[in-house]
Amino acid sequence: MKIIIIGATGTIGSEVVKALLQNKHEVVRASRNGEVKVNLDDPASIRGLFDKIQGVDAVVSCAGNAAFKPFAELTDADYELGLRSKLMGQVSLARIAKDHLRDGGSIVLTTGVLAMHPMLGSASISMVNAGLEGFVRAAALEMPRGIRINAVSPPWVKETMIKFGMDPSPGQAAADVAKAYLAAVEGRRQGQVLDPRLVQA
Amino acid sequence: MKIIIIGATGTIGSEVVKALLQNKHEVVRASRNGEVKVNLDDPASIRGLFDKIQGVDAVVSCAGNAAFKPFAELTDADYELGLRSKLMGQVSLARIAKDHLRDGGSIVLTTGVLAMHPMLGSASISMVNAGLEGFVRAAALEMPRGIRINAVSPPWVKETMIKFGMDPSPGQAAADVAKAYLAAVEGRRQGQVLDPRLVQA
Repeated sequence: MKIIIIGATGTIGSEVVKALLQNKHEVVRASRNGEVKVNLDDPASIRGLFDKIQGVDAVVSCAGNAAFKPFAELTDADYELGLRSKLMGQVSLARIAKDHLRDGGSIVLTTGVLAMHPMLGSASISMVNAGLEGFVRAAALEMPRGIRINAVSPPWVKETMIKFGMDPSPGQAAADVAKAYLAAVEGRRQGQVLDPRLVQA
Repeated sequence: MKIIIIGATGTIGSEVVKALLQNKHEVVRASRNGEVKVNLDDPASIRGLFDKIQGVDAVVSCAGNAAFKPFAELTDADYELGLRSKLMGQVSLARIAKDHLRDGGSIVLTTGVLAMHPMLGSASISMVNAGLEGFVRAAALEMPRGIRINAVSPPWVKETMIKFGMDPSPGQAAADVAKAYLAAVEGRRQGQVLDPRLVQA
């Protein structure tokens, strides 16, 4: 399959690229500052991506930002960041991709464990992740031409925990998280939120 | 308890008012064009409400709009409506109420069954409702001074179904939905999403 991956240089994205290449897919790496440029916050940039890269079977997003800070300190701008970037950036990707992917194509978005299992500081991220999961469940009912849409909800990733000075032992390695993206792209799931700790194929 | 109810003139809100009065609470009815005015889309209007009405124990929101239409027809403005009104309007209410309610106070927001059980046309509403549920679960962890926050997720309401020309038999009467709001205000739940078909007290 010909697959665009957005956020291809990130901790998870780079492992998803490896996993897709290993399964002999043709991979187009897209990111804000990479080989192929795209900015999910800007629908025109997403449309430009699909104009440039034709005949795409699947698009995987490992992109999107949201603010993590104590509830009492979250500002309007913090909420706005998550809404514009991680939530509506990926919603825009799905809205545009559905008109450009080949018949039977696949859209895979990224939410996160905080959607259903919040922690101190996650009010904005939990809102954004849960909202995206609600969107995926609903949009799946109306995808045209056999196109599928799913989300992967990564747990804490070992590499990220190490970067933040946290104990990585309860986390999952990014390479294992990547397997859930592969399952979402290649399988027959529709409207699902995949937990990489539970889904391997 | 002294309780502000926002959206007090709506199908559900008017029944919540009745239920609260029946349990001898002091009720302040607020709405866009009512006795006491408030517009959830405007944080200044929410702050004005709490400046005017002091010593409040609980605030209940039965307010907020979002667009319901086929996925392929949802516009940027449709998504924006749900984000600004039903999602961030109620998030703003929670952010402001936490600084104004009495110790041990209660915040009750409204999501809806489409968060977890989507249907054709619900992509934006499902996103907004699910996002609000994620917010409530997370914000509950950081509420100060014993303040509780919960959401009620109403099923289809008989009165609304009749208004839309639908068969009301699978719906729940607004007066029964209202009992879940009462349970959320009076009980000890924290960070819960209440399904009025399952929760009566």
